[in-house]
Amino acid sequence: MKDLVERLYPICRSITGDGVRQTLAIIGEHLPLRVHEVPTGTQVLDWTVPREWNIRDAWIKDAAGRKVVDFQELNLHVVGYSVPVSGTFTLEELRPRLHALPGAVPYRTSYYAETWGFCLTQETLDGLAEGPYEVLVDSTLEAGHLTYGEHVVPGRGEEEVLISCHVCHPSLANDNLAGIAVAVELARWLAGRGELRHTYRFVFAPGTIGAITWLARNRDRVAAVRHGLTLACAGDPGPLTYKRSRRGDAEIDRAAAHVVGDRVLDFTPYGYDERQYCSPGFDLPVGSLTRTPYAGYPEYHTSGDNPGFVTEAAMADTLHALQRVVEILEGNRTYLNLSPYGEPHLGRRGLYGSLGGRSDTQETQLAMLWVLNLSDGEHSLLDIAERAQLPFTTVAEAAAALHEAGLVKERA
Amino acid sequence: MKDLVERLYPICRSITGDGVRQTLAIIGEHLPLRVHEVPTGTQVLDWTVPREWNIRDAWIKDAAGRKVVDFQELNLHVVGYSVPVSGTFTLEELRPRLHALPGAVPYRTSYYAETWGFCLTQETLDGLAEGPYEVLVDSTLEAGHLTYGEHVVPGRGEEEVLISCHVCHPSLANDNLAGIAVAVELARWLAGRGELRHTYRFVFAPGTIGAITWLARNRDRVAAVRHGLTLACAGDPGPLTYKRSRRGDAEIDRAAAHVVGDRVLDFTPYGYDERQYCSPGFDLPVGSLTRTPYAGYPEYHTSGDNPGFVTEAAMADTLHALQRVVEILEGNRTYLNLSPYGEPHLGRRGLYGSLGGRSDTQETQLAMLWVLNLSDGEHSLLDIAERAQLPFTTVAEAAAALHEAGLVKERA
Amino acid sequence: MKDLVERLYPICRSITGDGVRQTLAIIGEHLPLRVHEVPTGTQVLDWTVPREWNIRDAWIKDAAGRKVVDFQELNLHVVGYSVPVSGTFTLEELRPRLHALPGAVPYRTSYYAETWGFCLTQETLDGLAEGPYEVLVDSTLEAGHLTYGEHVVPGRGEEEVLISCHVCHPSLANDNLAGIAVAVELARWLAGRGELRHTYRFVFAPGTIGAITWLARNRDRVAAVRHGLTLACAGDPGPLTYKRSRRGDAEIDRAAAHVVGDRVLDFTPYGYDERQYCSPGFDLPVGSLTRTPYAGYPEYHTSGDNPGFVTEAAMADTLHALQRVVEILEGNRTYLNLSPYGEPHLGRRGLYGSLGGRSDTQETQLAMLWVLNLSDGEHSLLDIAERAQLPFTTVAEAAAALHEAGLVKERA
Repeated sequence: MKDLVERLYPICRSITGDGVRQTLAIIGEHLPLRVHEVPTGTQVLDWTVPREWNIRDAWIKDAAGRKVVDFQELNLHVVGYSVPVSGTFTLEELRPRLHALPGAVPYRTSYYAETWGFCLTQETLDGLAEGPYEVLVDSTLEAGHLTYGEHVVPGRGEEEVLISCHVCHPSLANDNLAGIAVAVELARWLAGRGELRHTYRFVFAPGTIGAITWLARNRDRVAAVRHGLTLACAGDPGPLTYKRSRRGDAEIDRAAAHVVGDRVLDFTPYGYDERQYCSPGFDLPVGSLTRTPYAGYPEYHTSGDNPGFVTEAAMADTLHALQRVVEILEGNRTYLNLSPYGEPHLGRRGLYGSLGGRSDTQETQLAMLWVLNLSDGEHSLLDIAERAQLPFTTVAEAAAALHEAGLVKERA
Repeated sequence: MKDLVERLYPICRSITGDGVRQTLAIIGEHLPLRVHEVPTGTQVLDWTVPREWNIRDAWIKDAAGRKVVDFQELNLHVVGYSVPVSGTFTLEELRPRLHALPGAVPYRTSYYAETWGFCLTQETLDGLAEGPYEVLVDSTLEAGHLTYGEHVVPGRGEEEVLISCHVCHPSLANDNLAGIAVAVELARWLAGRGELRHTYRFVFAPGTIGAITWLARNRDRVAAVRHGLTLACAGDPGPLTYKRSRRGDAEIDRAAAHVVGDRVLDFTPYGYDERQYCSPGFDLPVGSLTRTPYAGYPEYHTSGDNPGFVTEAAMADTLHALQRVVEILEGNRTYLNLSPYGEPHLGRRGLYGSLGGRSDTQETQLAMLWVLNLSDGEHSLLDIAERAQLPFTTVAEAAAALHEAGLVKERA
Repeated sequence: MKDLVERLYPICRSITGDGVRQTLAIIGEHLPLRVHEVPTGTQVLDWTVPREWNIRDAWIKDAAGRKVVDFQELNLHVVGYSVPVSGTFTLEELRPRLHALPGAVPYRTSYYAETWGFCLTQETLDGLAEGPYEVLVDSTLEAGHLTYGEHVVPGRGEEEVLISCHVCHPSLANDNLAGIAVAVELARWLAGRGELRHTYRFVFAPGTIGAITWLARNRDRVAAVRHGLTLACAGDPGPLTYKRSRRGDAEIDRAAAHVVGDRVLDFTPYGYDERQYCSPGFDLPVGSLTRTPYAGYPEYHTSGDNPGFVTEAAMADTLHALQRVVEILEGNRTYLNLSPYGEPHLGRRGLYGSLGGRSDTQETQLAMLWVLNLSDGEHSLLDIAERAQLPFTTVAEAAAALHEAGLVKERA
């Protein structure tokens, strides 16, 4: 996964343009990807697909002709969607267009207000003389397309799980190349896992306008989305965090909380594209899985979020958590105890240790008792795992053993 | 407000009598007040309006003719509703009629059991010789009236907000001259505030029997009371405390909790006249706002509760909290997001900062996102403020901006 | 109670056999007891009544003919339900059949898998030479009966309270001779208490199979069980603990929590016979009262659980708690305030202290106000006691006084 992050890192992505196309092409080397091109001017919900932005070069040269700020060195140096410019400016004239942070180059964009600007460290800014400076932004902002990709892992049912990753950020590793890399591995793992109950749909789209475009073009598909996640900031050293969907108690909320444990946040209408999926008209059961959450680390949206900030171990941990969430979504069922009066005699069926009197009853046997006790048609296996404070897999295995023994049946 | 407290302080109030009339007359100098006189013997709910009590003088003189306890010095010295007496008693005979506290004169009454008595400090009591003592209570307890006052600030609708202050305590400043003074200022502020959605009704009545009399005479008006507060102990140095109505989750409970913060107590059927308003037959949404709550400070119901115990700053703080509660009651509405599929494009409407990538989104913009996300017809602005943990005014301002932009409409 | 524990202690009980019969016979000396004998092979719910087990003697003799393990010394030395054996074994051969704990003889059984074995301290085990050893288990495992007893304290209604004690453990004092002794005293106290609203049914039965047998033979009676408790571990020095029924909010759960206070555990389908009573088909409102809960003390299921481990004081405390629970179940009613508009005038009816102004209102008067305020037909006295945070008895006394005064009536 780290290799993929490093390969994608230098590309200058934005909400439109060739950077997104290159990114999707590379993802497509790992996964069959259907790429969609939506023309500038297309109405999508309350929005309009903007003009396409591409950039070849940009710099600020000092009086000596030295590049003091250079897009080729780091694409964060240019404000995203900067319009073309070529001219000479004093530092005083430039100042309102220069965005700086101590020790780091900030990431700034201006998609919907035509402007241009540069980003640099505070130290570079402080070192600049009064000028004049020669400035170039060699960009185009023209009718074109918005590009996004979809990958589908088919299941046996119509119900879908949506995994959505934003692909619009330029050289930022954790946000969201790590999310992309983990999603790619998750898709590959799903393909090899065996029959799936749900269809898994991966959407790789620019943030906000991309999710809005996907929603606008898939309004009839939205009803099939039973569970979903936006996946971002998947590789930083912080622990996993789950942010609930707007519903707050959707099955994905409970499945993710079961896996993530304590670090669960309530929904807020700010953050990643769960904002769009959870808008009140759609209100989809889509939460957000991150490690350190949105804007919660100092490197966030700065040049500090580079490949050195993300680790293979952190991405593997995120992937593992997603696999556990998938296992819950796939395995969660509601059973009916077919022998609900008293406990059935488990020992006779070889499901119970034969030597009594001991207090160290195995977790599996306890799980069986919980499944029997709560399988009244009102409690799913996840309900039972939560109530019993046992791992879902332990409960699911107990249910499978009871099913095998004919003691429970799946609720119709 | 402090001036009003000081002016009202020397008057000897009780649940009936000229002290209440003088008090209402002084309030009437600040507010148009409708004064009601209800004859002795009138049946009010389960009670009967008692005889009217008035007192001219009272003292205990020692053998040397020196007044050792003197009503003219402090009206708390006489047990409220003491019947007339004139005679000579030994200390031994007086003792059961003397109520004392170390360092303070307690406040005692006996409205419904005919008796007489005096209150004094423990130190005075301890210094008394065996007597004999000459004793006078020059009072009358005769057919008359119970007196209460009402002030109404009319709003455009039928729905009412009830503010109730007890006016039966003699020389006690915080309990409840401070409440009266703050209520007077609130009424004046409401008069100047501009159009009101609710009608505000201020009831200045004796505790218990006064509230019961008001309820008995306004049974057809009670249904119009949408929100209410008893206001007492409004000037002591303690922090504000809100005690919930019997319902516990009425809008007034939530509005007051939003303003007061942590110091919110559950309803108990003891305290001020919320006891009557929240009796199960009425069950009105009436809570109680105080600073230090009922019986919660050492000066409570003693001579220590004098004008030196209350401050203008504390009363101003109480008034400010009431104004904020009013703003919530006036401004709380439920909106419908007219663009509920995805976020509407706020930037295009000038409602969103144009430079993206920054994490220091303004509170106002966050409030707009919350209003849009939760305006599905099920959430009021107060619901949203609670959920978003934002000040109500911020949320209300955001809603106003969205309303102006045509993005939300008020729910019918 | 301690005497009864000591008398029952030496008897070798199991889930069937003469040990249970002797135990029930001794209980029958204190209480009229109906003893049921259910034949081996009887189908009871999902189970079959097993063969009856009796044992006369058992030992392990070393080469010198010395008994190194002797059933006559302590019946825990033999694994319960051990089949007959007579032969010579090396230590190596014996080892899988020997169960040991440091410093204590463990309690082990094997009801449903035919085997035999011995229990001993780790110290004894460590001191054993290689053998050979002569081994005797002089037991019988033959068609016979399962035995259980019932005692009923009749009440005036059909509704029943079930108190269930397991009687299958051999020489273990706290688990459950203390429970049996406390149940016996509770039954005697109930007999002398005066008219009862509920019928109280005491079931003394072997664990699991006994409760299952009772349930199988009383399926038409089960609907009458309104409240119930399993009673175990009633004499150890730990504080009382209540484990909720499967329902979690049954009246017994709330009554017991009111008495026990903080130490309340959620239901789990493990522990004593609440497992059977709370199986989903029955789902009876049966919780479990213990001191230190199931398996929660080091002496649990070892020779350390001997009469020295239980005290008369602890059993008296358990009994007292049960009496308080009974008083709640007997006394809990829902009243209607007949004067619900405003507070009724309590003083006029002699129900209220006449001297006002004091803040030290008696708890009883506060309880009256609570009963009046919440007696709207929706709140029982237990609801009121919980909400008011007052003892149930105080609330019940207040309700009785109000009832006497004609201010409340019982809800139909």
